[in-house]
Amino acid sequence: MDIIAPVVTPFRSGKLDLDAFASHIRNIVRKGVDAVFVAGTTGLGPALSVEERKALLEAAASAAKRVIFQAGALNLDDVVALVKYAERFDVEAVASVPPYYFPRLSERQIVRYFKDICSATSLPVYLYNYPTATGKDVDARIAKEIGCLKGVKDTNEDIAHTLAYKRLLPDMRAYNGSDSLVLASFAVGLDGVVASSANYMPEVLVGIREAVRAGDLERARRLQFLINEVLDVARPLGYSSAVYELIKAFQGYDVGEPRPPIYPLEDEDKDKLAAAVSKIKEALRL
Amino acid sequence: MDIIAPVVTPFRSGKLDLDAFASHIRNIVRKGVDAVFVAGTTGLGPALSVEERKALLEAAASAAKRVIFQAGALNLDDVVALVKYAERFDVEAVASVPPYYFPRLSERQIVRYFKDICSATSLPVYLYNYPTATGKDVDARIAKEIGCLKGVKDTNEDIAHTLAYKRLLPDMRAYNGSDSLVLASFAVGLDGVVASSANYMPEVLVGIREAVRAGDLERARRLQFLINEVLDVARPLGYSSAVYELIKAFQGYDVGEPRPPIYPLEDEDKDKLAAAVSKIKEALRL
Amino acid sequence: MDIIAPVVTPFRSGKLDLDAFASHIRNIVRKGVDAVFVAGTTGLGPALSVEERKALLEAAASAAKRVIFQAGALNLDDVVALVKYAERFDVEAVASVPPYYFPRLSERQIVRYFKDICSATSLPVYLYNYPTATGKDVDARIAKEIGCLKGVKDTNEDIAHTLAYKRLLPDMRAYNGSDSLVLASFAVGLDGVVASSANYMPEVLVGIREAVRAGDLERARRLQFLINEVLDVARPLGYSSAVYELIKAFQGYDVGEPRPPIYPLEDEDKDKLAAAVSKIKEALRL
Amino acid sequence: MDIIAPVVTPFRSGKLDLDAFASHIRNIVRKGVDAVFVAGTTGLGPALSVEERKALLEAAASAAKRVIFQAGALNLDDVVALVKYAERFDVEAVASVPPYYFPRLSERQIVRYFKDICSATSLPVYLYNYPTATGKDVDARIAKEIGCLKGVKDTNEDIAHTLAYKRLLPDMRAYNGSDSLVLASFAVGLDGVVASSANYMPEVLVGIREAVRAGDLERARRLQFLINEVLDVARPLGYSSAVYELIKAFQGYDVGEPRPPIYPLEDEDKDKLAAAVSKIKEALRL
Repeated sequence: MDIIAPVVTPFRSGKLDLDAFASHIRNIVRKGVDAVFVAGTTGLGPALSVEERKALLEAAASAAKRVIFQAGALNLDDVVALVKYAERFDVEAVASVPPYYFPRLSERQIVRYFKDICSATSLPVYLYNYPTATGKDVDARIAKEIGCLKGVKDTNEDIAHTLAYKRLLPDMRAYNGSDSLVLASFAVGLDGVVASSANYMPEVLVGIREAVRAGDLERARRLQFLINEVLDVARPLGYSSAVYELIKAFQGYDVGEPRPPIYPLEDEDKDKLAAAVSKIKEALRL
Repeated sequence: MDIIAPVVTPFRSGKLDLDAFASHIRNIVRKGVDAVFVAGTTGLGPALSVEERKALLEAAASAAKRVIFQAGALNLDDVVALVKYAERFDVEAVASVPPYYFPRLSERQIVRYFKDICSATSLPVYLYNYPTATGKDVDARIAKEIGCLKGVKDTNEDIAHTLAYKRLLPDMRAYNGSDSLVLASFAVGLDGVVASSANYMPEVLVGIREAVRAGDLERARRLQFLINEVLDVARPLGYSSAVYELIKAFQGYDVGEPRPPIYPLEDEDKDKLAAAVSKIKEALRL
Repeated sequence: MDIIAPVVTPFRSGKLDLDAFASHIRNIVRKGVDAVFVAGTTGLGPALSVEERKALLEAAASAAKRVIFQAGALNLDDVVALVKYAERFDVEAVASVPPYYFPRLSERQIVRYFKDICSATSLPVYLYNYPTATGKDVDARIAKEIGCLKGVKDTNEDIAHTLAYKRLLPDMRAYNGSDSLVLASFAVGLDGVVASSANYMPEVLVGIREAVRAGDLERARRLQFLINEVLDVARPLGYSSAVYELIKAFQGYDVGEPRPPIYPLEDEDKDKLAAAVSKIKEALRL
Repeated sequence: MDIIAPVVTPFRSGKLDLDAFASHIRNIVRKGVDAVFVAGTTGLGPALSVEERKALLEAAASAAKRVIFQAGALNLDDVVALVKYAERFDVEAVASVPPYYFPRLSERQIVRYFKDICSATSLPVYLYNYPTATGKDVDARIAKEIGCLKGVKDTNEDIAHTLAYKRLLPDMRAYNGSDSLVLASFAVGLDGVVASSANYMPEVLVGIREAVRAGDLERARRLQFLINEVLDVARPLGYSSAVYELIKAFQGYDVGEPRPPIYPLEDEDKDKLAAAVSKIKEALRL
């Protein structure tokens, strides 16, 4: 039962801050995070250039033992370049979202996209399924048709949807990607979670895993509910931006800010978030 | 961790067959079902007359110790008459869907509807939330505003949505109503499930509960997946109609048929279902 | 290009007020409404008993020359009884929504439902398609498969969806049912509209039709936008309930109130509506 | 009533073919297209590099008098560079989709994005609203809050949604972007359409406009339905890819192919399309 962090990408004045990135990774790994997912949604992957993604991968590989590298993009040449580059490092897998934005791709085109990625690399290829972001659902049936996938990060509120990959493809590793389903993912025996809360509350995720293992659902639920309380406040403010502030608030260090059009939170919103966080920190101390 | 069956309503030539109904209930209770949910969606509740619902309630009360009676309708006078009638029997709770069909009800109107039901009866009132059927989501926040609800059947693929009732209203009983989330509901510690598969595969649901209690997630998942296989075949044929055939196939007796416009399956579809069932029965024997 | 009013059903203390109903119909017919649609959504059709619907039909037939009678219900016997009863009157057509509430009906079951209605009556049968209310879209392709439909009221924000019935079934009468598409329906040459605003602003609908005929799109648009302004205010309050108040405000007489759970507006909401109406009445005078 | 073509971007072996691009533009302009929309969805805009978009703009400006340049991207620096570059040419407007992919942006962030674009350029800025592709609806109310927009391409099946921009912002130019609403857009008096069918059937769009002007709705509808027939066949195959084949089939020249992951159609799908096209060409000749 892995805890995987889709790590945040720190910017300062529009440039990557690789030192902050690596030191953030080291901190959360020390606190119990098993692996990092680089250039995912929390990491603003689709908003990064090829060169930026390469730099992130290199920095992540130096800071964590287990790295999954998200290489999805709207130009297949870029995707191929990225997965080939990943072979230089000891990465656990490359992953990709299906082609996003374009709403009328056929299933055949999506299957071909993933097959082309598999052909381009000797690394294990993971599906990153996130229908709300990409507008298409690459479900277990399509994953089976693709044939070469070794794992999936399924960002989906329906845990039965994630379990379906295990049902149709028992050898595939299956992770749920929703912060509100950490407890449920552990409890039903998925391979783990890829949850952005692992950036700012890794201790809580570790606590949930321990509680589930110990059969203490009461405690597991209390901890999960703390994450939900953060989400209730942070999501309406723009979650991708809020994660930077949440790291500062919970972990105590500065990981820079996102890059526009993912704008940093405005001061008013930072204050709202801070007020909520201090309540939750108190609940955590109990 | 209750297993509650939203019991099927047997018709013969458009009339209720109350004997088949009672004897079906006795059978599944004997096999481990804890309570029955009368006149729910599987029971074709919104398609029944007030008199039919009363007759069902009376028959159910004679056949099961624990009965929850769904009284939701589009005329509040009917709802009030039904919940008052329920007081004559030893029912555990009355339940109601929010007003369905009408898509532009305000939240205020929905809150008032449930408050009016609570005022009309001394029995505990449960919310039956089923957004796909009713077109509105009476979530934990609204349930809290209603204030008088003692339980919820949440037919929802998102188990975090069901858990949210426990988060905001810790004293409320919370059941998930999706056949594909039986394992997940037990594993995260909900109060149980109200699953229509309890009509035709009660043994499997009992098996999942035992496996979860024993910490044998492998086995729990294998059993859950058998339910999913039934759903994959049955849903495209018209699930409400298929349930009657599934009872015949798995439990070995005839519970009549639904009433048009919920048409009985045509022969061709019955054959498709039978073929799938015989494979699943084999898997069950292993 | 017909203007059809889905007439409101007036209640007083939970009982039908047939006099108010008939006199409301006479008023709007006098103002240019061509036909009435009885027991539709605005008329709270699915919330009425069989007897209530028969009484409404009788009253409507005495007050308007052209009547379409909506007979859809969740018990086919009731639907058949209603369409047979309609044969006693000089009605233009009977109509039906597909079976609502039940989310997992197969296309085959829906097709059979409409074929059964056609078989039960010598009257023309119209489809009343309203996906937001019923949860299923009986589109032009399915309508073609049904084979016996003579018309459609398509309550749908996508006018191309309504035009598709004319494309696949050129002899079918096609009406759009959205208040915000009155201008568009006339402008693209549909057979007309079934718009609930015809209850409270029949003069405006007549004005739009005249302006479109005269090629004065500027004026047609200005009038359509007045309807939209009403909708902006009325929809959040519960549109079905607001219609009763809008009739009072614009037409100057009392048509009673809806029946719970379609609750009458509370005073606070009535005031909000009144304020908006008086602005719009001023704009109308210009 | 403008006919604007969101022009296709021709690739050969993954590289832009600017000659084919310019000569395609010249052809459709000669046939009655009023303006071109460069690097939109049909033009695979979000899949192009900054340099590729600049090259397209230069070529388009040499081939058409009226050019709108879509500059939206997930890095604001790139967007600013593109709109500044556009000032070198005689372009009519720059346009942008809201930030796509990221599902949890706040309204405030979206408003700020468009304000930042307006601040960066002296050119008129148009909103390109396409909720199905971007996952967010920048409707008339938000457009009004942005304050600096001069036009909108609204790719939306609901024409009332497009009309709402004219209602709240009468000075804004409003175009609908759906191929199935060409007739409706002209008939209700929008400023025109931005329809990808203008790439392959410009004559038909010109014909619809003429028919609407002449009040011949019968003919306008017959022509619109021909477009719909193309869409019925082309959309399931992957519409963005099909457009290249449709240009070849209807206009008789080769504009290259898309770039993976927007894969060219496979031969089998090309054949399906060709069969449909030859029927439609016959209907056109009548």
